Amino acid sequence: MPGLYVVVEGHDGAGKSTIIRELDTKLKAEGYPVLSTFMPGATKLGAHIRKLVKQPALIDEEIVIDELTRQLLYLADAANFIQLVLNPALADNKIVISDRSSFISSLIYGKVSNVDMFTLNELYSALKPPLIEKLFVLSAPLDVAMHRVNEKLSAEVIKDYFDSKPIEYHEKIHKLYQLQDPVLTVIISRFVALNNITKIDTDETIEEVTNRMFTEIVRTYKEKQSAFQA
Amino acid sequence: MPGLYVVVEGHDGAGKSTIIRELDTKLKAEGYPVLSTFMPGATKLGAHIRKLVKQPALIDEEIVIDELTRQLLYLADAANFIQLVLNPALADNKIVISDRSSFISSLIYGKVSNVDMFTLNELYSALKPPLIEKLFVLSAPLDVAMHRVNEKLSAEVIKDYFDSKPIEYHEKIHKLYQLQDPVLTVIISRFVALNNITKIDTDETIEEVTNRMFTEIVRTYKEKQSAFQA
Repeated sequence: MPGLYVVVEGHDGAGKSTIIRELDTKLKAEGYPVLSTFMPGATKLGAHIRKLVKQPALIDEEIVIDELTRQLLYLADAANFIQLVLNPALADNKIVISDRSSFISSLIYGKVSNVDMFTLNELYSALKPPLIEKLFVLSAPLDVAMHRVNEKLSAEVIKDYFDSKPIEYHEKIHKLYQLQDPVLTVIISRFVALNNITKIDTDETIEEVTNRMFTEIVRTYKEKQSAFQA
Repeated sequence: MPGLYVVVEGHDGAGKSTIIRELDTKLKAEGYPVLSTFMPGATKLGAHIRKLVKQPALIDEEIVIDELTRQLLYLADAANFIQLVLNPALADNKIVISDRSSFISSLIYGKVSNVDMFTLNELYSALKPPLIEKLFVLSAPLDVAMHRVNEKLSAEVIKDYFDSKPIEYHEKIHKLYQLQDPVLTVIISRFVALNNITKIDTDETIEEVTNRMFTEIVRTYKEKQSAFQA
């Protein structure tokens, strides 16, 4: 597949959306074909699934969604995303920059909720998704991240599923995103081409981070273009 | 797990719902603890998923559901069903009689829509569902079946997703339900304990079919009760 599949991952408040916005502007300014998107919820079906998972009572007060079912609903979103958003954009030779990959987020959030990592691995592997060609994992210090999350939440009318989680929950997620759990890291690597994972501390200025990611994306994209033309 | 997990499968118009109603009455009359249920759509979430798959335009006109995504939505329904309906009833020592198993229906309907059987096998295996302990596959001659389906459809306000399918589609489904495709049969067998599959031609009277199924269910249930008490 031509194009380039880039994923920006990280805990809530790591700065993903801000940096993707900057990257999108900078790449487009230099004439690169970019599609900035996100998981889950980018397709119309996905948006409905996201609402269903986060606010089931709005649809039917008696809906009960257990943890594995939640992950399967996100799996349906992922299949729809691959079919309708990701594959067409890659075929069109675009640089796709996705805010999260459900594959990775599910592994991390699922682990905290005791969903078996190997089950998730089997499920996502069965979809045979395109490999991520460049994975950036952003991280900010926990206090900075929590401050950003709280600012964002107070600005939003619709509250997030994770709103009510205690600080211990966010600490666990934050720690898992350091990618120091060896089994988790091995499973994540299976979805990434050539283990092309870069961890970035967003303590640096946004400009520094953006420049660094921009350079890596452009280099990888150009390498791939040459390989395809050869 | 105690209890007994019975599935009644077959093409549309094979007579599944009529026979399950009869079985339910007869078993309850003799004091057996029975839960008659169905897949997909038995939980509140499942009912919503079924509506989403069959009538997406009622939710959002722009929703597009590709074939694999459709199967994954039914997989989420299946996980929810196992967690909220099937496992609790089996733990409560009930005879669960399910009108269809999504595992089996997905394999058969998916095959006609060219969904890869091995992908479905991997996906459903990852859920680690309880094994079906008694699988009945009902079949009626195609003309009888189509007549029943048409009668049922004309009585229903909400039309089925399969309404508009041409006769060739129904012929293919009908043929697959004869379980003569060797690969399909092997995959189905993996979800059934001891390959305990009985094909039943519903050309016989309803009473004959019900009696035969009743006898088999009661014998298997009693055997299992003795094994559990031993």
